[in-house]
Amino acid sequence: MPQRSTPTLKELARLAGVSVSTISRALANNPAIAPATREKIQRLAKEQGYRPNAQARALQSRRSGSIGLIVPSLVNSYFATMATQVQAEAMAHGLNTLIVNANENPDTLNDLLDNLSHHQVDGVLCVPLEESRDRIEQLASTIPVVLIDRDLPDSQLYSVTSDPAPGMRSALKLLKHHHLLPLGYLSGPMSTSTGRERLTVFQQGCVDYEIDDPRIFLGGYEQQRGLEDALTLLKQGVRTLFAGDSMMTIGVLQACHRHRLRIPHDVAVVGFDRHPAFELQQAPITVIDQHVSDMATLAFRILIGVMADNPPDQRRTYINTTLITRESTQCL
Amino acid sequence: MPQRSTPTLKELARLAGVSVSTISRALANNPAIAPATREKIQRLAKEQGYRPNAQARALQSRRSGSIGLIVPSLVNSYFATMATQVQAEAMAHGLNTLIVNANENPDTLNDLLDNLSHHQVDGVLCVPLEESRDRIEQLASTIPVVLIDRDLPDSQLYSVTSDPAPGMRSALKLLKHHHLLPLGYLSGPMSTSTGRERLTVFQQGCVDYEIDDPRIFLGGYEQQRGLEDALTLLKQGVRTLFAGDSMMTIGVLQACHRHRLRIPHDVAVVGFDRHPAFELQQAPITVIDQHVSDMATLAFRILIGVMADNPPDQRRTYINTTLITRESTQCL
Repeated sequence: MPQRSTPTLKELARLAGVSVSTISRALANNPAIAPATREKIQRLAKEQGYRPNAQARALQSRRSGSIGLIVPSLVNSYFATMATQVQAEAMAHGLNTLIVNANENPDTLNDLLDNLSHHQVDGVLCVPLEESRDRIEQLASTIPVVLIDRDLPDSQLYSVTSDPAPGMRSALKLLKHHHLLPLGYLSGPMSTSTGRERLTVFQQGCVDYEIDDPRIFLGGYEQQRGLEDALTLLKQGVRTLFAGDSMMTIGVLQACHRHRLRIPHDVAVVGFDRHPAFELQQAPITVIDQHVSDMATLAFRILIGVMADNPPDQRRTYINTTLITRESTQCL
Repeated sequence: MPQRSTPTLKELARLAGVSVSTISRALANNPAIAPATREKIQRLAKEQGYRPNAQARALQSRRSGSIGLIVPSLVNSYFATMATQVQAEAMAHGLNTLIVNANENPDTLNDLLDNLSHHQVDGVLCVPLEESRDRIEQLASTIPVVLIDRDLPDSQLYSVTSDPAPGMRSALKLLKHHHLLPLGYLSGPMSTSTGRERLTVFQQGCVDYEIDDPRIFLGGYEQQRGLEDALTLLKQGVRTLFAGDSMMTIGVLQACHRHRLRIPHDVAVVGFDRHPAFELQQAPITVIDQHVSDMATLAFRILIGVMADNPPDQRRTYINTTLITRESTQCL
């Protein structure tokens, strides 16, 4: 007689008439679920012969005490801050963090993904590249993987990303209000969720705040692109440069310093992220803050939740961006 | 009859009348050793029953294809650059790099050291903290470890560090020549080789270039220390601030910006390392360049040499620092 297979969380959810996450949290004895519900679900699971899945059991039996973090760059201080915060959280939970850097290169990322699974990490936080999607999902079939900073469209993996709308819309409103126009935008690459989402928010914001004829450059998350595209936009008569990430913001500052352009007199600047160079200016730079430390904390907590078979209710978690207004967008 | 033990490289060196490194390189078939010498040494090794040591054999049998890199900070872009370059070199050699961050904390470093050995890395590059010396040497008894950026006094481990003298002495000569005095120095901690060596070079340079009464602050490798100590030195009437690392240089710039001090008119500044914030100034900052990418490349090559039982001749390898003169020390 064949052994009866263990029911899935989904089957238990259908039988109990509740969501998968309720089942999962009830089985993890999470106090967010009412005691009577927890008891009912635990009894049902027992009756149905539920066993935690192979992955979870494997984890329990060979806990390495380490997690992996895959970042696309370390010279970008945004990701260095992310790595530092993930590590601090992990350490507070008695876990070590192995950090690997994909250098924005899908081949490198694929190698790292293959390799990480051999290093017995209990889970992985990954800033994904879309070209590596298959390999990321393959790894996720063996250990818990949570996406951070960027998302993969239509993926089933949990993710924590920033919502660019609050910060970017505040910036656009400010620029319109101070007549800091015409406006040029240095966009991130269309192969990243962040690049696409920020461009959409920018375009919609320009419509809503009646900012006419914004110039848009489809760039990359690189300092050199920021420098070159800034110079092109300035030649086109742009009054304000809006850079779609840290690295391009550095490029914009390079362009301004090289050509002795005074900020905000000759050109106003809006950038992304807290970076020491942005505050340490004659006129400090107005930026969209993605609260990367909060993002790292939340992603880590979701990862340990998934590792404990206690995932969040929603697949995607968003961190609101905020605008930090400094002198680079001062009304003159 | 007990099995005769394999001779050590040292014993072979004594028998052949050559250095240990010649033996090691000859056995590794390194073309730097004359073919006749190589052949002679290989024959001798065979006669004496030489077998590569247990560590080297273990490595050969369980190569993980990964190395570990331990840095004391990632928000310090100097170490982020180091990590990026080590990883690029390792990747070019078909090796992955696991990066771990000790946050300048000996307890964290001890945990990381214990943990790295469980992750099957083939070798480790480590920026040491002196309080963790015992654990570093313990790890080095099981896998090859090469020190980078900082050294452990009287250690037997190979190290690659920068020689602060060429860059710092050029800076002191320039400051004296341009009459940018009195001078204040923000020193790194005395618990690091870099902190001690740079202070010695600073003091000797002041004597040699007849810079009278330099003010010295024993600080730490932290931005906040740079900010506070800079303000104290400025109150003491210092004309030029010389910061002993990247993080303190950022602190000095914070102090200048907060108090609207114009560089170099009100205060001249010399810093350490290439950091985007140092170039992106109204008056870009003169810095001592430690050539951290070259340091990373060299340390990686020494590590794979040690892993292949082919270590360098000298225990310590130095990278010369150079002075990058920019407007922050301009003669007015």
